[in-house]
Amino acid sequence: MNKFMKIAINEAKKGIKNNHGGPFGACIVKNNEVIAVGHNKVVKTKDPTCHGEIDAIRKASKKLNSFNLKGCTLYTTGQPCPMCACACLWANIDKVYYGCTQKDIDMIGFKDDVLYKIFKLNSPKNYFEQIDRTECLKLFYEYMNLSNKTSY
Amino acid sequence: MNKFMKIAINEAKKGIKNNHGGPFGACIVKNNEVIAVGHNKVVKTKDPTCHGEIDAIRKASKKLNSFNLKGCTLYTTGQPCPMCACACLWANIDKVYYGCTQKDIDMIGFKDDVLYKIFKLNSPKNYFEQIDRTECLKLFYEYMNLSNKTSY
Repeated sequence: MNKFMKIAINEAKKGIKNNHGGPFGACIVKNNEVIAVGHNKVVKTKDPTCHGEIDAIRKASKKLNSFNLKGCTLYTTGQPCPMCACACLWANIDKVYYGCTQKDIDMIGFKDDVLYKIFKLNSPKNYFEQIDRTECLKLFYEYMNLSNKTSY
Repeated sequence: MNKFMKIAINEAKKGIKNNHGGPFGACIVKNNEVIAVGHNKVVKTKDPTCHGEIDAIRKASKKLNSFNLKGCTLYTTGQPCPMCACACLWANIDKVYYGCTQKDIDMIGFKDDVLYKIFKLNSPKNYFEQIDRTECLKLFYEYMNLSNKTSY
């Protein structure tokens, strides 16, 4: 599987083991180098905007000292919700690879499907691309089987 | 004009006077009490996600110690971009009032219109409502006339 998606999965695992939020990890790469990783911390931080992609974007911007992440690629364990998808575009990220689909995210109890009915995506060609779903689904099942998690 | 929109405008003015970012301020209210105010700090923080609405949501969540802002209303000087509009829905904010329109935001040089072509909004009925555009436009003209601002 893609090595950067593997990093995003491992980052998500850290989060779910500590009840930080959903099984969503992200990894931002520039010139084949990892710039930042992030994971969903909605439950930990009580910040409803602290999704994995946004956490990673904030860290990458800090590291590169720029609000412009042109030249970067983002890997994320689940298809970005409209908030995160739009954040990637504001950050000028070149390309987004995601693992699990909206349907998979719906299956584990999040409302991304409802949000995508409100924001109908007319994506720039080849901008969002699905890879490594099987590996990311294992992470989702691990999350489903956790007993001590806080839903939101 | 609406007193909470006035607070959002004053918050935005603080930001543009200090070159923090665009002329976007937000005010979150619960039971007629101001819970949090925020403004666009993309230039100051170098965080492309630090729009006025998201800044205010983060602060309100911290103050109420919850990722669930049910019962809150958000006032913002410009129509929320898809990222911020979706953030309001994730936060379970009851209702959003905005001043200037997408077209006004386009006029002062931001790409919200492009983003709304990518995310076609099928808004929940009466969720986003436009008020006090004239007062908010004055703020936008003040921003346009600033000579020391950083564009993004």
